[in-house]
Amino acid sequence: MDARDRLESALELAIASQTAECPPGLIAAMRYSIFPGGARLRPRLCMSVAWACGADDHRLTIGAAAAIELLHCASLVHDDLPAFDNADTRRGKPSVHRAFGEPLALLSGDALIVLAFDVLARAAAARPDRLADLVRIVAAATGAEGGICAGQAWECEPHIDVPRYHRAKTGALFSAATMAGAAAAGAPHAGWRQLGECLGEAYQIADDIRDVVCNPAELGKPVGKDAALMRPSACRELGVRGAIARLTGLVDAAVESIPACRRSGDLGALIRQEASHFLPQEVADLAA
Amino acid sequence: MDARDRLESALELAIASQTAECPPGLIAAMRYSIFPGGARLRPRLCMSVAWACGADDHRLTIGAAAAIELLHCASLVHDDLPAFDNADTRRGKPSVHRAFGEPLALLSGDALIVLAFDVLARAAAARPDRLADLVRIVAAATGAEGGICAGQAWECEPHIDVPRYHRAKTGALFSAATMAGAAAAGAPHAGWRQLGECLGEAYQIADDIRDVVCNPAELGKPVGKDAALMRPSACRELGVRGAIARLTGLVDAAVESIPACRRSGDLGALIRQEASHFLPQEVADLAA
Repeated sequence: MDARDRLESALELAIASQTAECPPGLIAAMRYSIFPGGARLRPRLCMSVAWACGADDHRLTIGAAAAIELLHCASLVHDDLPAFDNADTRRGKPSVHRAFGEPLALLSGDALIVLAFDVLARAAAARPDRLADLVRIVAAATGAEGGICAGQAWECEPHIDVPRYHRAKTGALFSAATMAGAAAAGAPHAGWRQLGECLGEAYQIADDIRDVVCNPAELGKPVGKDAALMRPSACRELGVRGAIARLTGLVDAAVESIPACRRSGDLGALIRQEASHFLPQEVADLAA
Repeated sequence: MDARDRLESALELAIASQTAECPPGLIAAMRYSIFPGGARLRPRLCMSVAWACGADDHRLTIGAAAAIELLHCASLVHDDLPAFDNADTRRGKPSVHRAFGEPLALLSGDALIVLAFDVLARAAAARPDRLADLVRIVAAATGAEGGICAGQAWECEPHIDVPRYHRAKTGALFSAATMAGAAAAGAPHAGWRQLGECLGEAYQIADDIRDVVCNPAELGKPVGKDAALMRPSACRELGVRGAIARLTGLVDAAVESIPACRRSGDLGALIRQEASHFLPQEVADLAA
């Protein structure tokens, strides 16, 4: 079974653990929020870092990756709600609140956050000494202190602190992915933050670019939202070509930041390959 | 410092840990959601059980109690949202979404859930072997598998499973309070579930009774919501006197269920005293 299949199995298992005492509507909404997935970028990054660090506990590695993906899915469900983006579609299908109503969308986001921590605690059965770090890493990435909630909440402020906004809303979960990968492998995790930050910023810029230049069918969600919602965007700041150049620089910085570890070369190559898919080819060619 | 003061300090500390990278509106909404508190029943129950079990790590005991209260506050904030109860007031002041708007109310609920797990992980620094149980206990109480999210989601179903609904929406966090108290003290926790279940059901019945017979100013929140929302209620089922008799029986069952522990007598007395405040005196007298 390859990494992607193992992750999907872990996500399936996490959902299956919730079915006995869960009302049918809620479990259906949770399942809909998770499957079929998007690129599963963050959990794959988490697993890649763990394996580069010589992961010795596959259950914990996959559990950490699954927890990160559950938190990502939760944030998408809540972001799409009418109180925020009011998005009708996501990943090419109706958003969760469009498909299941606002109450179940709200609850499925809440329940996915809780499930993420439950998954971590179950996965750490053989390595209880690694659990506290993992919990704190993913909590920091999602909560009010520089996590996804903080990022989203900057949109409610009269003056947005743009770098903080991006670091919190997008960067934090990428950093959590790299740090949790290291922590799951029992390696020191602080040195892995920068890799996540660079990739998070690169991904955010790619998202800004796609929001400007892609068509909605290709993207699976509405475009032009950033401009419509007056959100900060790298394209407005740097132009599309400038934004693409910045993205390229960040991927280089990401690869250079990889701490010494057993398979740092493999990891660098993998990251370049992944990042090459951040933008559709014809968009990347614009900068060539 | 008494137990209540220690808890308030722990909650203050938890919020203070979130201020450096948190947008001002979000941290204000979170603080508003927690302070001033209600009766802090669940965390005090948690601490009482821990001390009855001979708690040897005060930081972990208080941390577990604080985590339970944060999750309780989060559930109130989300329950009050327009998608659910659409409540204008809570604890005698405007509900969080009335005071801060729906986006910040939604995010503060999310951030409080995350913070609860962070608080647990920090508090378990000296007892990392107890963390997994604590995470799993509070996750089960709040998530989709019989936790608060499940309870709330029963309201979205065409047919409500009433006993499951109450167990999940109210009972689960009371059981988590008793089990987490035991787990924080390093004692086996499964035997403490029944105490929480009985008290949760008693509290739910008291809430149903108050919803029927109290005036809104006394209660700090609107009354008559259960009937207006067609929610199941012990008063509709048993009448007010019948409901009060059931409550009394549950408190007896709660005290009888207390597992053998160092200070079971003190705990029993404390629980009877606490439960005597579940209803205003003139309401309790109705059944005499």
